[in-house]
Amino acid sequence: MGQADLVLRPRTRSEVQAMVRATARMGLPLVAQGGATGLVGGATAQRGEVLLSLKRLNQIRQLDTVGLSVTAEAGCILADLQRAAAEKNLLMPLSLAAEGSCTLGGNLATNAGGTQVLRWGNARDLCLGLEVVTADGDCWSDLDGLRKDHRGLNLRDLFIGSEGTLGIITAAVMKLAPAPRSRMAAWVTLDSLAQALDLLCSARTVLGDALSGFEVMGEAAQTLIAPLPLPVAPWAVLLELSSPRDEAPVREDLVAWLGQMLERAWVREACVSHSLAQFQAFWALRESIPGAQTRAGGNLKHDISLPLRCIPQFVHECEAALAQHFPGARPVVFGHLGDGNLHYNIAPPEGQTLATFSAQEPLINRVIFDLVAKHQGSFSAEHGIGRLRAEELAHRGNSTGLALMHRIKRALDPQNRLNPGRVLLASRPDGP
Amino acid sequence: MGQADLVLRPRTRSEVQAMVRATARMGLPLVAQGGATGLVGGATAQRGEVLLSLKRLNQIRQLDTVGLSVTAEAGCILADLQRAAAEKNLLMPLSLAAEGSCTLGGNLATNAGGTQVLRWGNARDLCLGLEVVTADGDCWSDLDGLRKDHRGLNLRDLFIGSEGTLGIITAAVMKLAPAPRSRMAAWVTLDSLAQALDLLCSARTVLGDALSGFEVMGEAAQTLIAPLPLPVAPWAVLLELSSPRDEAPVREDLVAWLGQMLERAWVREACVSHSLAQFQAFWALRESIPGAQTRAGGNLKHDISLPLRCIPQFVHECEAALAQHFPGARPVVFGHLGDGNLHYNIAPPEGQTLATFSAQEPLINRVIFDLVAKHQGSFSAEHGIGRLRAEELAHRGNSTGLALMHRIKRALDPQNRLNPGRVLLASRPDGP
Repeated sequence: MGQADLVLRPRTRSEVQAMVRATARMGLPLVAQGGATGLVGGATAQRGEVLLSLKRLNQIRQLDTVGLSVTAEAGCILADLQRAAAEKNLLMPLSLAAEGSCTLGGNLATNAGGTQVLRWGNARDLCLGLEVVTADGDCWSDLDGLRKDHRGLNLRDLFIGSEGTLGIITAAVMKLAPAPRSRMAAWVTLDSLAQALDLLCSARTVLGDALSGFEVMGEAAQTLIAPLPLPVAPWAVLLELSSPRDEAPVREDLVAWLGQMLERAWVREACVSHSLAQFQAFWALRESIPGAQTRAGGNLKHDISLPLRCIPQFVHECEAALAQHFPGARPVVFGHLGDGNLHYNIAPPEGQTLATFSAQEPLINRVIFDLVAKHQGSFSAEHGIGRLRAEELAHRGNSTGLALMHRIKRALDPQNRLNPGRVLLASRPDGP
Repeated sequence: MGQADLVLRPRTRSEVQAMVRATARMGLPLVAQGGATGLVGGATAQRGEVLLSLKRLNQIRQLDTVGLSVTAEAGCILADLQRAAAEKNLLMPLSLAAEGSCTLGGNLATNAGGTQVLRWGNARDLCLGLEVVTADGDCWSDLDGLRKDHRGLNLRDLFIGSEGTLGIITAAVMKLAPAPRSRMAAWVTLDSLAQALDLLCSARTVLGDALSGFEVMGEAAQTLIAPLPLPVAPWAVLLELSSPRDEAPVREDLVAWLGQMLERAWVREACVSHSLAQFQAFWALRESIPGAQTRAGGNLKHDISLPLRCIPQFVHECEAALAQHFPGARPVVFGHLGDGNLHYNIAPPEGQTLATFSAQEPLINRVIFDLVAKHQGSFSAEHGIGRLRAEELAHRGNSTGLALMHRIKRALDPQNRLNPGRVLLASRPDGP
């Protein structure tokens, strides 16, 4: 809860409204918080701020097996929603490492991504409607769960990803899907990132919608999490297939395709999961990378995205630039290649602590983000802006776009009371 | 071009900017227009308004076969984009009856739907980025085409669906997909709409992502377009499968599943397309409904959406209410059942002209839209609000939501110069 002077824990939407109104009367800034798993300081209160925890607002209001949707409150933990769907033989596609503690409200406030974006999109793509308490304490509700609905301007997608700066999400309708009948993973090793990209292009075409995940891990990331299904290689790919078809024919297709890839020498070796336990073990390895980084002493994190075609060149150039300017610094690269999203993290040189290394963070960020910009990428892919990247946004954002964002912020939160200083810096001059 | 006093036809984005600035200096209202295929009067100029036609702004700027996206200008005709994608063995999934003349800018301005929404989503879901000229004549550009990008508030989805009232879309990046290797359609007849819903639920589970379209047609709609593949029935379904797999096994799966449906007596008869020509003929029949309605004398159109589970009951109640209040009026019902979207059109009683019948339009709308509201549906699914439904929105919209929309409109177009009177009625009181 950071340094909040006051923590509010509403149980109902009306309590949220009453609290928003009461703090408005007192002119107090309000920081909404879900599972507090964010990485950019968006939901941690500072001194003088009131923390509004949505964790008690955690009812599942409706699960519609015909409309394929679940209506749930902001404080619901993602894994609980996944379980509720699974009980009805349905899939809640949103999936990320923090799913055991992150909440639906936070997922939507940050437009969370994760491992299934390739097939299902971000949290935004999975949302059919919201219930939001405005800065005035009013309630806007759009929980009909319709797949096509065009009643005026699109407020829903404006609140999604606004990180609590425009309103407080109290509930949402999320898409579900029929649970796949078969699910399997393959661990593949490769010589280069360019090969991983070729592999992705081929998989998309041959396997189509069955391809539901495509993760990449550089050598340093693999080393952190050994023992692996295959020996450490310059690059490894974890790919996932989900299908409504029976397991045997899907496996046959996968093995035939991997055989072609081996023949063409696009991959070194490949290993396919042969049970649910193996499938889960492959994923557990991939998801153990963040924890392993922490245990290894931590590193400086960069959540970037790039046009797919630029990724090998970017990684090449960035490695060279870092080696030149910060000798010994060790990139730990992994991420969701299918979405063009890399976690491009930099560990200190051997023997140096993270604390010492961090003094160079602004310079390292500059090298990395300048190269990201050169390749038309983004310095913020799926972790949000929060406080951590607010300066970066003010500095690097399109100026017309920033001016529009400030106008919208003023229109919806004229007192700048909702999550102030997150996403948009208050000081920015923004015209009439 | 309606009654416009002046028509502007820019060829470049800079010309759009210059024209927006020049008309701003003169205080003239500006109506953006694409292919002028809209059904709600959103892009037709009134006396005293300046029409800005985007049709000359029609370059394809980039087609990225690795990133699977196309960057194109607002005036590009949808069918041209589909063709450009097909030439690279890719699919531009957006597809609707007007695709031969509607433009990308209009598709995005109205968040167009169409026949492939079940699998691919609306225009919004297919858009990766926009270039927009603001009310001030500035340009906001976000054409990097990234799949994950979180740089501040989400302006993109606010402009999409705003029908030219917040800014003028000049270009966009749209998602493409690998072209399916097999594509087929089945024409199925049924006794009831409830059966059609059961069929949909089963198809989603068994066929999964291969199910790319699910259209429904009532008896009156079928009668308009005979001769059909199967005799006219109370309900007919046209379903489409697209798959990266070979045609033979996909057809085998489809035929096996339809066999089960016939055994369970969920369907009367079923007919599967056996060539591309048959596939296209099935779709041509479905897409000939709008034209056939016009040739039959026209009708009053309602583009509604409902929670799937409510659809049979809604249609039942609505038919009864219309028979009671408007004896002889003939509902012509068809639409995209997979998305909960019905075109619920009402033809005049035999022998009555549409002109005479139209005098009752406000009353008919009220009966239908009241029932839509009772079942948590929407009176506007995929055709937009424009001028035609602006009163309806002002009357039926959530008041908090409307107030927020007006604030946003004022923030982005303080002079109310962009498409005034469309979507939001100017007169609405909207607080501080």
